[in-house]
Amino acid sequence: MATKLVKNAVGRMVPTEINNEIAVPFKGVGKYKPEGKKAAPSISSCNDYPLDGNKQVASLEEALKKSGLKDGMTISTHHHFRNGDLLANMIFDIAKKLGVKNLRWYPSASFPCHEHLIQYLEDGTISHIEGSMNGVLGKFCSQGKMSKTAILRSHGGRYQAIQDGEVKVDIAVIGAGTADSFGNANGVSGPSASGLLGFALGDSQYASKVIVVTDNMIPFPCYPWQIQGGNVDYTVLLDKVGIPEKIVSGTTEVTKSPDRLLIAELTAKFCEEAGLIKDGFSFQAGAGGTSLSIGNFFGDIMRRKGIKARFARGGSNKYLVDMLEEGLVEYILDGQTFDLEGVRSMRENPNHVDTSPFTSYNYHGKGNFAGMVDIAILGATEVDVNFNANVVTHSDGYLLHGIGGWQNCLFSKNVILPIPLFRDRISVIREEVTTICGPGELIDIIVTERGIAINPKRTDLIEKMKGSKLPIKTIQELKAEADAICGPAQKPVLSDEIVAAIKWVDGTVIDVVRKVID
Amino acid sequence: MATKLVKNAVGRMVPTEINNEIAVPFKGVGKYKPEGKKAAPSISSCNDYPLDGNKQVASLEEALKKSGLKDGMTISTHHHFRNGDLLANMIFDIAKKLGVKNLRWYPSASFPCHEHLIQYLEDGTISHIEGSMNGVLGKFCSQGKMSKTAILRSHGGRYQAIQDGEVKVDIAVIGAGTADSFGNANGVSGPSASGLLGFALGDSQYASKVIVVTDNMIPFPCYPWQIQGGNVDYTVLLDKVGIPEKIVSGTTEVTKSPDRLLIAELTAKFCEEAGLIKDGFSFQAGAGGTSLSIGNFFGDIMRRKGIKARFARGGSNKYLVDMLEEGLVEYILDGQTFDLEGVRSMRENPNHVDTSPFTSYNYHGKGNFAGMVDIAILGATEVDVNFNANVVTHSDGYLLHGIGGWQNCLFSKNVILPIPLFRDRISVIREEVTTICGPGELIDIIVTERGIAINPKRTDLIEKMKGSKLPIKTIQELKAEADAICGPAQKPVLSDEIVAAIKWVDGTVIDVVRKVID
Repeated sequence: MATKLVKNAVGRMVPTEINNEIAVPFKGVGKYKPEGKKAAPSISSCNDYPLDGNKQVASLEEALKKSGLKDGMTISTHHHFRNGDLLANMIFDIAKKLGVKNLRWYPSASFPCHEHLIQYLEDGTISHIEGSMNGVLGKFCSQGKMSKTAILRSHGGRYQAIQDGEVKVDIAVIGAGTADSFGNANGVSGPSASGLLGFALGDSQYASKVIVVTDNMIPFPCYPWQIQGGNVDYTVLLDKVGIPEKIVSGTTEVTKSPDRLLIAELTAKFCEEAGLIKDGFSFQAGAGGTSLSIGNFFGDIMRRKGIKARFARGGSNKYLVDMLEEGLVEYILDGQTFDLEGVRSMRENPNHVDTSPFTSYNYHGKGNFAGMVDIAILGATEVDVNFNANVVTHSDGYLLHGIGGWQNCLFSKNVILPIPLFRDRISVIREEVTTICGPGELIDIIVTERGIAINPKRTDLIEKMKGSKLPIKTIQELKAEADAICGPAQKPVLSDEIVAAIKWVDGTVIDVVRKVID
Repeated sequence: MATKLVKNAVGRMVPTEINNEIAVPFKGVGKYKPEGKKAAPSISSCNDYPLDGNKQVASLEEALKKSGLKDGMTISTHHHFRNGDLLANMIFDIAKKLGVKNLRWYPSASFPCHEHLIQYLEDGTISHIEGSMNGVLGKFCSQGKMSKTAILRSHGGRYQAIQDGEVKVDIAVIGAGTADSFGNANGVSGPSASGLLGFALGDSQYASKVIVVTDNMIPFPCYPWQIQGGNVDYTVLLDKVGIPEKIVSGTTEVTKSPDRLLIAELTAKFCEEAGLIKDGFSFQAGAGGTSLSIGNFFGDIMRRKGIKARFARGGSNKYLVDMLEEGLVEYILDGQTFDLEGVRSMRENPNHVDTSPFTSYNYHGKGNFAGMVDIAILGATEVDVNFNANVVTHSDGYLLHGIGGWQNCLFSKNVILPIPLFRDRISVIREEVTTICGPGELIDIIVTERGIAINPKRTDLIEKMKGSKLPIKTIQELKAEADAICGPAQKPVLSDEIVAAIKWVDGTVIDVVRKVID
């Protein structure tokens, strides 16, 4: 990429052009003011759709052909099927068969099951991926093998990019647990039920052509209509759209590691002592083992205090569902279900609410609810002494994870990163993170097994924790302890070549990922 | 209005310009192909909204001022409070107080309670109304007293006009039974609960500024969020937004008139004999006394046959709710609740679905569900020998009713108008209707107390009814009977001056209303 690099507001050198389109360098939190109008899809007419509402065509191939699939298009998919997704591979198998080239894949996330697509990245069927990349695809990208620059966005940023017209989706393919032939669809029922379809909402609203694919076609109305037929062009019935046992994330069990349990306990104690756990509070905890344990500790505290949470932000799982059903939590505001208990609860319990990135995360809306969450428990691969954090690359420079909702959740009132001080004898606390995904000003507390660091900007929390028996330390102290154990941190060996850009929630470029030299 | 008139596809002379904007004459059903893009609101940024989500301001006046209320703007409201609405009058009282002039009022419907606004139409605070006009406002318009031309649209046409950018709403004021300070809102709960808020959906999506007003402000999240806070600029808490006892329509009792009961019975018998009532069928019946009776007859038939309906399209009311709860109807797809039983059912029963004009009626979407309804029972003030029908004016020329969802429902598979042959000794069946609201090709069956006429285009139905003992007649035979009783029909005495335009579902002009000469 021979484009000009400029230093952005967090000191990273970023390009002003990516894949021949203008890119705006990150200007600081809340400093970039978008201009212009939202994307405007073409006006449709009912006259061009069957009056009886039946939009079903014989195959996915037919739907893609009717949608005008051709070279250079952008094809979007969602990741509610997680590692049990079958559709993305099918779509590009068809594109390959039809000889279509140079497609941009715009998934809301990718999973190991998408390793199948590497052949199409190699043969030019797919030009590049814009979306969270995990594992093999990230590694492929890190090695500079993708023909264009990858772009990673948060879940909210993905919606923002569609809404703002930054990414024009030509064909959205939406896999659904249940649908009707008109295109109304949901994820709460059917043999491939995956919970909700919120990640596909923006695609359904803004894509030129929208295809709904299901293995459970029912008579109109398919309700709830998480995706609305009035936005859908074609529907397709397949034998199978997802593998249910792989839809469920493998990580949704509480940790048994003594270190992780200690981190969880310290986090919960910190929240209680700092007065963050009070009647009507709200929290978000992920589906990782440590986060689940923190949720359980929160439950214990609420029971002891006789209080309840107004809402919990999901990723839902059986532990959160238990809290909802016990009455400890009034609402689950769910962005994706991580297990089948989450799916069941969403289907049965009106207080288990399906949300979309518009509602929860879109930074270019009239507010979103991320800022209303009292406690957000998030992860990181690295944190630096300025509290900047990284979630996409490892310290060896490899891009191995997506951003997910992580950046969006940084706007919560108290952002806590419970992380081990080191992993595989590599310190997690660095002088500088390999990739800045979130600016330190938004990260409030780092909890490790050897101590808790509060961001110096949070003088209110520092004041509150005076006299606490918890191991409150500075971030420099934590780093020194880690360095003493692991030895000085190694810098990754990177080429100048930019293989991926990391967008901030407002569409600006906060950092880049460079090719790894093996 | 000194604009050119041209003859449209139903033979009516209509203007090519209305209020200085281009108007497209009706070209025939499905003949007009829209071009261009949907309306594109400005891109917002969370940075301009409170991070804690609290958008509440002290008063409606403050919210209107912050929204930039000024001369010439378009202000929209919804009519879910029906004749119990308090907000529209408040808004224009404030505008008057602030000296703002020349406002366009864009309600989804008006009611007798809005007579209060006539003073503002007279003094120039309001320039004109685009929306269904009932009673006094319609009469005011008919007398040529409005300074600009009124425009009437169907519920679907109203959404279409917003979506297509034909009507740019500057400020939408959305009254809600319950809301949170972020702007999430619903109509199912609270002291002024009115059911759903679907008529305000398009306004919330496309208006420049959106104000949610409630008398029941609850902590986030207000769920269901029929209106989403991510689209809302300001929230306001008032003592009272609606008068519940007036929200309930006065017309929701079954008819006791022997003639109307006969019409209802004939309609139900016709539907049964024609094979329209079968397992999994669907129907729409309004809230008028005759329609309610027809629904009851449908219930009897279903019980006798041991079948059920897949869905009923509401306006919901206690009779329809009974059918849902009895299991005769699987879903109510509701556009507006007509009584408090409807509100309760929508709050409690997940199969009582709130819909919006986008879902049900928008002709410029990728289909809508009106075409999937097997039997639509509709009213009319007049029908002519070509099956064209009128719902807005009386035979004396006065504009006294809105279009509602009537035009949209004409796309249903079997459109039935059960109407008395005459009213106040004036025949309902005319040589030509005073105002064409719906083209005859979409109207299938006229049922009167003296006979049933099938549209000659429906050869299938004519065939099926051969040998029936029901009084099947031609429309000309019905007209002759009516004329014999009432005497020859009088034409209304009208000036050339056009006071209102009637839009078709695609935004074209199907007819106009002319000034009545008293």
